Amino acid sequence: MSAVTDPEEQYRLITKNLQEVLNGQIIKDVLEKKERHLKIYWGTAPTGKPHCGYFVPMIKLAHFLKAGCEVTVLLADLHAFLDNMKASLEVVNYRAKYYELVVKSILTSIGVPIDKLKFVVGSSYQTREDYVMDLFRMSNIVGQNDAKRAGADVVKQVSNPLLSGLIYPLMQALDEQYLDVDAQFGGVDQRKIFVLAEENLPSLGYKKRGHLMNPMVPGLGQGGKMSASDPNSKIDVVETTKNIQKKISSAYCAPGDVTDNGLLSFTQFVIQPIQELKNGKEGYFNFHIKRPEQYGGPIQFNSFEDMKNAFANNELSPIDLKAGVASYIDDLLAPIRADYELNKEFQEAAEKGYPVAQPKQKVKKVKNKGTRYPGGAAAATPVSLDSVEAVDAAATKLQSTTLEESK
Amino acid sequence: MSAVTDPEEQYRLITKNLQEVLNGQIIKDVLEKKERHLKIYWGTAPTGKPHCGYFVPMIKLAHFLKAGCEVTVLLADLHAFLDNMKASLEVVNYRAKYYELVVKSILTSIGVPIDKLKFVVGSSYQTREDYVMDLFRMSNIVGQNDAKRAGADVVKQVSNPLLSGLIYPLMQALDEQYLDVDAQFGGVDQRKIFVLAEENLPSLGYKKRGHLMNPMVPGLGQGGKMSASDPNSKIDVVETTKNIQKKISSAYCAPGDVTDNGLLSFTQFVIQPIQELKNGKEGYFNFHIKRPEQYGGPIQFNSFEDMKNAFANNELSPIDLKAGVASYIDDLLAPIRADYELNKEFQEAAEKGYPVAQPKQKVKKVKNKGTRYPGGAAAATPVSLDSVEAVDAAATKLQSTTLEESK
Repeated sequence: MSAVTDPEEQYRLITKNLQEVLNGQIIKDVLEKKERHLKIYWGTAPTGKPHCGYFVPMIKLAHFLKAGCEVTVLLADLHAFLDNMKASLEVVNYRAKYYELVVKSILTSIGVPIDKLKFVVGSSYQTREDYVMDLFRMSNIVGQNDAKRAGADVVKQVSNPLLSGLIYPLMQALDEQYLDVDAQFGGVDQRKIFVLAEENLPSLGYKKRGHLMNPMVPGLGQGGKMSASDPNSKIDVVETTKNIQKKISSAYCAPGDVTDNGLLSFTQFVIQPIQELKNGKEGYFNFHIKRPEQYGGPIQFNSFEDMKNAFANNELSPIDLKAGVASYIDDLLAPIRADYELNKEFQEAAEKGYPVAQPKQKVKKVKNKGTRYPGGAAAATPVSLDSVEAVDAAATKLQSTTLEESK
Repeated sequence: MSAVTDPEEQYRLITKNLQEVLNGQIIKDVLEKKERHLKIYWGTAPTGKPHCGYFVPMIKLAHFLKAGCEVTVLLADLHAFLDNMKASLEVVNYRAKYYELVVKSILTSIGVPIDKLKFVVGSSYQTREDYVMDLFRMSNIVGQNDAKRAGADVVKQVSNPLLSGLIYPLMQALDEQYLDVDAQFGGVDQRKIFVLAEENLPSLGYKKRGHLMNPMVPGLGQGGKMSASDPNSKIDVVETTKNIQKKISSAYCAPGDVTDNGLLSFTQFVIQPIQELKNGKEGYFNFHIKRPEQYGGPIQFNSFEDMKNAFANNELSPIDLKAGVASYIDDLLAPIRADYELNKEFQEAAEKGYPVAQPKQKVKKVKNKGTRYPGGAAAATPVSLDSVEAVDAAATKLQSTTLEESK
C-alpha cells in the first residue's frame, strides 16, 4: 500500500466516511505546511475483550496511518480499572497489552504501515503532578452543568451518576495536550466532550485541537435478538470459523429490512472499507457469496448499494447474506487468529487479562458503574454488563451505538 | 498552663463549646487507651489576610493542644491558588507562611504549648500519585448528587457552580487519611462534607473519623453597617491600637439588641474563652471597662450573661461596650503585633503574600470563583470579594457565618 503524501488527498482520507469534523483547518494547516506528520489520538479503555465492532474505529486508524499520520492509541487503563474495581490493576495491565496486540494485529492485517502507531497507557501520565494540577485548574474553569452536558451522551443516565462522569471529560481534553496531538478521533457520541475540550483548553494556555467523528454504527444484535450477556452473541476477534458461523446464523436479520440490519452495516462500515484499503481503488467492492448450485449458485455484488437494494427487494435472502458475511468475517479474523496462535505474549495477555470466571452463585444486583472512558471504543463503545437484569436497561442504548458489545 | 491528661477531662475540653460532635466514641477510644496522642486536623485556605474572626477556631485549637492532642493545620495552598488564579503559586506560598506564623503567634499568645502543633501544605501530597489515585477511586464511588449536597453549605449557590466544588469535598475526606488523624475539626457549615467523609472513607478501605463542629459565630459587620470591601471594616490580626478603636467605633451595635451584635458575640466566643484558658478556671470572666469618672466611672462584669443582660436592659451602652471590646481586642493583638515587629520572616510573608495593590482602574465584574476550601477558616470562613457589586450579594451569607471577613 503506497503512502498518501498530497495534503488534499491526505485530508480526504483522514476525514473519509466521518460524520463530522470540527476545526478541520487545524488539520489542514499541519498537512499543508509539511513540516511534520499530523498527530491524532484515539482513546480506548481496556475493559472487555474486543469484538468485531472494534474493526469500525480500526478502519479510521488505517486511514490515518495510510495518510502518513502519527497515531497514538491511549489505552485508558486507569479508567478501565476505576470503572470496574473488581479487576485488579495487574489484570488491567494484561488487558491493555491484549488491546495493543489486537490493534496492531488488525491494522497489520489491513495492510497499513504501523511504524507511526504508538500506544500510551493513561497511568503513565494521568496521575503525574503536572497533569493533576491542570485537572484541578480545569475544574476551576468548567462549570458543573457544562461537565454534565459534555458527558451526557456517554454517561449512563441514572438518577445519581458518579462524580467520575464529570471528571472524565476534562481528562479527555487534557489528554490532547499531554499526548501532544493535533486532533482527537472518536465516535460522534463524543461530540459534546470534544466541544468542551475546544472551549476550555485555550483557557489553560493550551491550543485548541481538531476533532474527527465517526458515525455510530448499528450493531449485529439489532431487534433484541442478541444480548450482550449471552456469550454466543459476541464475535471475538480470535473467534473460530465454526463459532463465527454459529453466531452469525443466530443474528437478527429480517427479510427486506435494510435499516435495522447489523449484517449490512458491518458490510458497509467494515468489509467494504477494508476491501477498498487493500485494493487501493476508491469505491472498490467485491462481495462474493459461495452459494451451492442447488440453491441457485454463487452471488456477486460489485457495489454495496446493489447489495443493499437486492436485500431490500428480497432478491438477497437473510440466509445468503449471513453466509456471505460469516465468510468475510472469517477472512478478516484469520490473520488475527494466526497472530494469536504464534504469539505467546498475546495468549498470556488473554489468559491473565480475562481469567475464566467461576460460575456465578447468585444473580448480582445492577450496579451503577458510571461511564466507560468516554473516548472509548468510538463506534464500538465497550459496555460492561454484569447481570442479566442490566441487559434490558442497557439494550436500547447498546443497539444504537455498538456493532458488537464487549464484556 | 498545665496539660490535661484525664481522658474524661480531655474529651470535655476537646468538645467544649462545640455545636455538634459526630462519632465522639472514636475520639474517646483513643483517649481512653492512652497509647498515643489524639490527632486532629483543621484545614484553612491561605487566601486573604486573617482577621480577628480567626481567633474563633484558634480557641478550639488551643483546647485541643491543652488536652494534649496532636494538631495538624492543613494550609490548603492548592485550593487557595485554584480559587484565585490571579495570585501566583509563589504568592500563595508566602500567604501559607503568613497563616502559619499567625496561627503560631495567636496560640502562643493564648499560652498553650505548640510543640504538638504542625503545619502541612496541601501541595505536599495532594498531587501525589497515591492521593490522586484515591481521589479517582472515590469519584467512582460518590454520586454527583451526593457530592453536590455535601458542598451545599460552603459552595456559593450560583446557577452553574464550578466542578471543583464537587471535587473539594472528596479531597477533604481523603485529607483525613493522608494527614493520618482521628478527627477533623471545622465549622458546622462543614457538616455535610464531614458526613460524606464518614460514609465514603470506609469504601476505600480507610477508617471512619470523628468530627468536631464549631457553631457559626455572627460577625462584627452585622446589620449591613460594615462591608468586606471597605478596608476600614476589617480588623487585621496586626492592626494598630488606633485603627482597632476606629473600626470598632464604626461597628454596627444597636442599643439593647443582643441577638444581632457582633461585639457581644466576639466577647462570648473569643474574649471569654481566652480568659478562661489563661486563667485556668472554668467559667472565668473578668470584663473591665475603663470609663472615665465623668461618664460614670469603670464598669465591671464577672459573667458574660450579666454583661449581655446589662446590654439588653440598656444598662450597658453601645459606646461603653465598644470601648471595652476595643481595649480587649487591642490586648489580644498586642503580642501578635510584637511577634510581627520582631520577625523578619513574618514581615516578608506579609509583604510578598499581600503586595500592595495598584489603584483599580475600573470596577471589575463579579466572578464566580467557586467555593473556598470547605475546611477553611471554620467559623470565620474567608470570603474573597473583588468588587463593590459583590458585596451586596454576599452580605447575607457573610453576616451569618463570619465574625470578620477577610479579603
